[in-house]
Amino acid sequence: MIEAGARGFASDNSAGIHPAVLEALATANSGHVFGYGHDGRTRAVEGLFADQFGDGARVFCVFNGTAANVLSLRAACRRWEAVICAETSHLNVDECGAPESIAGVKLLTVHTEHGKLTPELVETRLERLGVEHAVQPRVVSISQCTELGTVYTQAETRALAEHAHAHGLILHMDGARLANAAASLALSLREVTTECGVDILSFGGTKNGLLGADAVVFLAPALAEGFEYVRKQSLQLASKMRFLAAQFEALLTGDLWLHNARAANAMAARLATAVHQVPGVSITHPVQTNVVFAALPPAALAALQERFGFYVWDQDRAEARWMCSWDTTEEDVDAFAQAVSEIARG
Amino acid sequence: MIEAGARGFASDNSAGIHPAVLEALATANSGHVFGYGHDGRTRAVEGLFADQFGDGARVFCVFNGTAANVLSLRAACRRWEAVICAETSHLNVDECGAPESIAGVKLLTVHTEHGKLTPELVETRLERLGVEHAVQPRVVSISQCTELGTVYTQAETRALAEHAHAHGLILHMDGARLANAAASLALSLREVTTECGVDILSFGGTKNGLLGADAVVFLAPALAEGFEYVRKQSLQLASKMRFLAAQFEALLTGDLWLHNARAANAMAARLATAVHQVPGVSITHPVQTNVVFAALPPAALAALQERFGFYVWDQDRAEARWMCSWDTTEEDVDAFAQAVSEIARG
Amino acid sequence: MIEAGARGFASDNSAGIHPAVLEALATANSGHVFGYGHDGRTRAVEGLFADQFGDGARVFCVFNGTAANVLSLRAACRRWEAVICAETSHLNVDECGAPESIAGVKLLTVHTEHGKLTPELVETRLERLGVEHAVQPRVVSISQCTELGTVYTQAETRALAEHAHAHGLILHMDGARLANAAASLALSLREVTTECGVDILSFGGTKNGLLGADAVVFLAPALAEGFEYVRKQSLQLASKMRFLAAQFEALLTGDLWLHNARAANAMAARLATAVHQVPGVSITHPVQTNVVFAALPPAALAALQERFGFYVWDQDRAEARWMCSWDTTEEDVDAFAQAVSEIARG
Amino acid sequence: MIEAGARGFASDNSAGIHPAVLEALATANSGHVFGYGHDGRTRAVEGLFADQFGDGARVFCVFNGTAANVLSLRAACRRWEAVICAETSHLNVDECGAPESIAGVKLLTVHTEHGKLTPELVETRLERLGVEHAVQPRVVSISQCTELGTVYTQAETRALAEHAHAHGLILHMDGARLANAAASLALSLREVTTECGVDILSFGGTKNGLLGADAVVFLAPALAEGFEYVRKQSLQLASKMRFLAAQFEALLTGDLWLHNARAANAMAARLATAVHQVPGVSITHPVQTNVVFAALPPAALAALQERFGFYVWDQDRAEARWMCSWDTTEEDVDAFAQAVSEIARG
Repeated sequence: MIEAGARGFASDNSAGIHPAVLEALATANSGHVFGYGHDGRTRAVEGLFADQFGDGARVFCVFNGTAANVLSLRAACRRWEAVICAETSHLNVDECGAPESIAGVKLLTVHTEHGKLTPELVETRLERLGVEHAVQPRVVSISQCTELGTVYTQAETRALAEHAHAHGLILHMDGARLANAAASLALSLREVTTECGVDILSFGGTKNGLLGADAVVFLAPALAEGFEYVRKQSLQLASKMRFLAAQFEALLTGDLWLHNARAANAMAARLATAVHQVPGVSITHPVQTNVVFAALPPAALAALQERFGFYVWDQDRAEARWMCSWDTTEEDVDAFAQAVSEIARG
Repeated sequence: MIEAGARGFASDNSAGIHPAVLEALATANSGHVFGYGHDGRTRAVEGLFADQFGDGARVFCVFNGTAANVLSLRAACRRWEAVICAETSHLNVDECGAPESIAGVKLLTVHTEHGKLTPELVETRLERLGVEHAVQPRVVSISQCTELGTVYTQAETRALAEHAHAHGLILHMDGARLANAAASLALSLREVTTECGVDILSFGGTKNGLLGADAVVFLAPALAEGFEYVRKQSLQLASKMRFLAAQFEALLTGDLWLHNARAANAMAARLATAVHQVPGVSITHPVQTNVVFAALPPAALAALQERFGFYVWDQDRAEARWMCSWDTTEEDVDAFAQAVSEIARG
Repeated sequence: MIEAGARGFASDNSAGIHPAVLEALATANSGHVFGYGHDGRTRAVEGLFADQFGDGARVFCVFNGTAANVLSLRAACRRWEAVICAETSHLNVDECGAPESIAGVKLLTVHTEHGKLTPELVETRLERLGVEHAVQPRVVSISQCTELGTVYTQAETRALAEHAHAHGLILHMDGARLANAAASLALSLREVTTECGVDILSFGGTKNGLLGADAVVFLAPALAEGFEYVRKQSLQLASKMRFLAAQFEALLTGDLWLHNARAANAMAARLATAVHQVPGVSITHPVQTNVVFAALPPAALAALQERFGFYVWDQDRAEARWMCSWDTTEEDVDAFAQAVSEIARG
Repeated sequence: MIEAGARGFASDNSAGIHPAVLEALATANSGHVFGYGHDGRTRAVEGLFADQFGDGARVFCVFNGTAANVLSLRAACRRWEAVICAETSHLNVDECGAPESIAGVKLLTVHTEHGKLTPELVETRLERLGVEHAVQPRVVSISQCTELGTVYTQAETRALAEHAHAHGLILHMDGARLANAAASLALSLREVTTECGVDILSFGGTKNGLLGADAVVFLAPALAEGFEYVRKQSLQLASKMRFLAAQFEALLTGDLWLHNARAANAMAARLATAVHQVPGVSITHPVQTNVVFAALPPAALAALQERFGFYVWDQDRAEARWMCSWDTTEEDVDAFAQAVSEIARG
C-alpha cells in the first residue's frame, strides 16, 4: 500500500507547485483589480508571452490542458472540418470525447511509430478533399513532446507545417510538455514553435510546476478572431484572472520553465540509465524528455506497483510509464531504480 | 482614471484570496499525490461537503461558476429537455450562450420581479407538455441569491421544489453567492438547499474569497450518475485537484464561508444606509445580500465612474451595481458613500 | 369525432400533393441518374431558382422547413453568434429546440405586435456588442409571412435588411409560406426577397402543394461557402435528389407556386369575410395570407373542434387558427363558416 | 462521356421509384389528414412493421439513411458514451462527421476483414471501462449487409448481440440494405434482426425502390423513450408523413421489399459470375448481396469509367464498386460484363 504523499512516478501532475509560483500568487494577492483579465498583471503576462513566442503571438489563459486543446480546435474548425492526429495522442485517447462532443470535430487518426506524425502519414488522411460525404481536414495536430515522450526536431516540425500550409491546413501543437521538449532540444520556445511554422499552440504550465494554468497561444494571430467568446462560452474564462497570470509570470521569469523542465528531463535520463541494463527490463520508446516507458516481467510490474505510484501503460505488454516531475530528486530516482532492479531480478 | 489596485465595487471577484485560503494552498503543497481527485485531501473535502449539505450529497469541484451551472444542466437534461429560468439569470445573460452551445439546452425564460421565480411564473412555461414540436421542461433553475441580490426564503424555495417535483422536474440552484444568501437568512447551507428540496446546486467559492473553485453538488445523488465523465469531457477535471480541494477545505472550516459572506453583506447594508437618502439616488432592488443597485442622475453616474470601479447595470435607467466583497472595509464604503453623496448633490 | 380524410383547417400540410407535382415525380422516374444532386434535373432546377431569385442565387434542396431554417443558421453563425427573432417565430416555438441543440445558437427573442420585427425592435437586442460574456448577434430572422399570417411590405423588409447590414448582421427569411406572402403583396418572389436585401432564404414548398421539399437559397452567395458539407452533415442530403428537384420544377413552372398560394389566400379572405361579423367571433390578426386567427366563445370553440380539424392557438384566449390550403374549396369555406356561425350563435 | 439517364452501376440510389411505390403515393394523395404522422396510414404502417419485426417494435420514419443512423446513436448514447464500429462503416466514412457533430458521439473504430465485426474485435475496444478520461462504449453498430456487401449469419449477429448485452451495451444495425441481406440469407426480416437480439435498426427503403424513406425501428422498445422529440429536433419529422408511410406500405405489402432485393442480388451474382474469370479482374470481397467489388488494371478501370457510371472504391488498388439495383436487368449486366471483358483484355 502506497502511503499518502509518497513520492512516485505516476505523473508530472502528482508534483505540487513550485515555490516561486506560490510566492507569485501571494504577491498578486493585493488590492482589487478588474476581473476576467482586464488587469495589469494579465496584460504584462501577454508581454512575457510575446517575448517568448514573437510579437504577433496572442495568448489566452485557460484552466487546463484539455481546455487548451479542445478550444484550439473549436476555434480553428468550422462544423465540417476535421483534425489529423496520432492514434496515441491525448486528444484521441484521454479527453473523454471532448474533441467530438465539445469541439464537434472528427479526429482522423494515424498509426505512428513512437507517437510522431510525418508529412507522409498526414498525407494518408488528405483523402476525399472536396467530397461532401466526408469531413474536410483543417488541422494537423501534433504533440511536442508526444504522449510517448519523444520529440520532434525543428526540421520535422517545419516539414509538417510546410506540408500543412501547402494544403491549406494549419498546424496545432499540443504543448502540454513543450518546455520539456524545448529543453531536450536545447532550443528556445520560439525556435520550436513560431520559427517552425506552428499556428496554434496549447502551452502547458500545470505539469511544469504551476498550480493550474495552461494557455492557447495563437502564433498566427488572425486565427484568434473571436476567441474571447470561444473561451468564455467554453467555460474557461477565469474571473480572478490575475492568479492565472501570476503563475505564468513566475514560469516565464528567469527561465523557471526551462529550469523545471531540465530538472525533470535529467531525472528521466538518470532513471533510464539506471534501469536499461536490468535483465527483463526493456525501454520501449526513446527517452528524450521526462518520461521512461519500460516493459517488465508482469510479476515484477505488479510487485513494483505495490511500492510506488505509476501507471501501467499497456497491460498486455506489461509496459509501465514512469514520469519524472520538476521536483523529482536524484534520491527518488535512485531508490526507485534500485527497487526496479531488485524486483526485476526476483 | 482609476489607479491599478484601487479598491472598488465592480464585483466580488475583484477581491483577492482570503489569507486562510492562500495558507491552505501552501499547506497542501507537499509531496506527491495522485492527480484528478484521487488524493486524500479531495476525499476529506467530500466529507466537509457532506457535513454541510447532508450525507447523500455528492460533490464535484470545477474551475468556475459558468462551468458549475452549465455542467449541472448538461448532466440533468436529455437532448430535448429545457430549463426554466429568470430572464435576468446569469445563465441567460452572462454565459455567452454556453447553456445552448455547450449544454445544448433551450432556456425558457420568465420575466420576474427582482429576479425571483415563483411556482406561478414557472407554471407559465409548463406549456405544450408531451407535444413533440416543443422542448420539454426538465429543470427549474433559480439563483440564490439572485443576480439582483435578492433572496428566496426557505418557504419560497421549498414551494418551487415541491412544484417542480410535482411536475416531474428538478430544481437547480445557482449558488454562486449561496453563502451570502444563507448569511442573509441566518440559516445553514443545508437549510437553504437540501432541506428545501434543491436537487442540484452550483456552489460558489470564487466570489467568496477563493482563488478559483466552484462545485457541482448533487443533493439528489442519483442525478450524479456519470457526472465524472461529464466533468472530464466538459474540460473541468483539474489534474492537481488537491489545490481545488484545499480551497474548499479552508472555506468550509471554521465557518470561513459565513464569516466572509456576513462581512460582504454588512458592507452592502452600510452602503445602502449611507446613500438611500441622498437626493437623486434611488435604490432599485431590496438590499438583502452584498450588492446595492441604485439609479443616479446620469451625470452623477458618469462622474462617479471616473473615480471608482463599478458596473453600470442599465444605461437607459442610469442604474449602477455596487458589489461588496469579503474584504470591503468600512473605510471603503464610507469613502464611496461620501463620493456618491457629493457627486449626486452636484 | 372527425372522420379520416375529412377536409379541415388544421394546416396547409394537411392537404396533399398537387397533381402537377405528382406527375412531375412520375416524369422524373425514368432511367438511372447519379445521386445526391449530380443529375441534370437538379441542375435545371438551379436555373429555375436563378430565374426567380436572381443569377447569383445558390439553392440547396432539403427535406423540410425545420431543416431549411436550422441549416441556414448553422451555416451563418459561428459558435458564439446569435439570432434575433420574434418570440412567436416558428424557430423559437416549434422546432423542439433544434436551433439551440443542432445549430448551437442562442435565440434573442423580441415581443412583437402580430409577429413582425422592426429595426427598432431589433435594436433592443443589439446590446453588449463586443462584450465577451454575451453572445453576439449575427442574424436577424424574420418570417414572411409570419406565424400569424401577417406580411412585411417591401419597405419593411428593406428597412430590416438595411438596418441589419449597417450593423454587420445578415437577414434571414423563413419563407415556409413565402408564396402566400408574395401573392398577398402581388409581387414576384425576387421582389420580396433579393430586391429587399434578404441574404438567406428558407423557401417553402411542402405547404404549397409539394410532397415534401424545401430549400435553402443563398441570395448572398458568399454565405454558401461550405454549405454542401453542412447539408450532408446535418442529415439533409437526399440520395435520390432528382425527386426533390422534380417537385420544385413543377412548382416553379407556369407559376404553379403563385396559383396555389393565391387560391389558399383567397379562401382565407373568404372565410374572414364570412365570419367576421358573427357575434362572439373576433378576428385577432390582420388576414393577409392563407390563415385566419379568431377568438370564439370557449364553448363554441369546443363544439366546433368536434366537427372540424383545426388547432386551438391559445387556449386561454379561446383563439383558433384556421389555415387554408392550396386545395381548400369555396364549399369547404362556406360549410365551415356556416358551422361557425351556427355554433357561435348557440 | 456518359449520357444522362444511362443505366449504370454507381449506386442503388441511381435507380428510380418502383411503380408500386409511385402508385401508393397517388393512392395516399386524397383528402386532408393531420400532419406529422397523426393519420391513419401512418398508424397502419406501424402495424406492418410490427408484422415484420415483432409486436414490440416501435417505428419512426425519417427522410434518409444518414438520419436513421445518426438519430439511432443520438437516442442511444448519453454525452460521454461511444459507438464501436468497423473502420469501413458508412457511419465512420460517409456521413461527413454527423455522428460526431450531430449525435456528439465518438466512434471507436476497428479494422476488419470484409467489413464485419466479431465479439473478439469488439472486445479490443472494451478498454478503460470506468475510467473518466475515456469515453464509455454504449453501442456496437454493425451494417447488414456491410459496406462491402458481406452478410452476417444469424449466428454471427446473435453472438455480437449476446456479447454486447453481456457487457451492458446495445446492438445497432445499419440496415440501409437489410432487405438484400435477408434475401441473401433466405431469412425473414425478423429472423435477421429481432430474433438475433438487435436493439435498434436503421431500416432502409430508399435504396430498395422507394422515393426516399428510411426508418428507425426500436426492437428493444424501451430505448424509444423520447424519440419523438429526438426526431423532431433532429430535423426529421415529415409534415406530410402520410407519404413516407405510403412508401413503406407499398414496400412491406406483398413482399415487394424481398422481390426488389432478390432481383438486385441476382444481378450482382450474375455480374460476378460473368467477370470473375476475366484475366486481370479479381473480385475483392465475397459477393453476397447486390454489389461486386473488383480490382482491375488501372488503365482498364479508367476506360470503363468513360462508358459506365460507377465508383472507384480504392484508387490505389484500382478497385471498383459495381452496385446493382432493384431495376438492373440481365441486359444491363451482360452489356457491362461484356465491356469489362473487352476492356480488361485490352
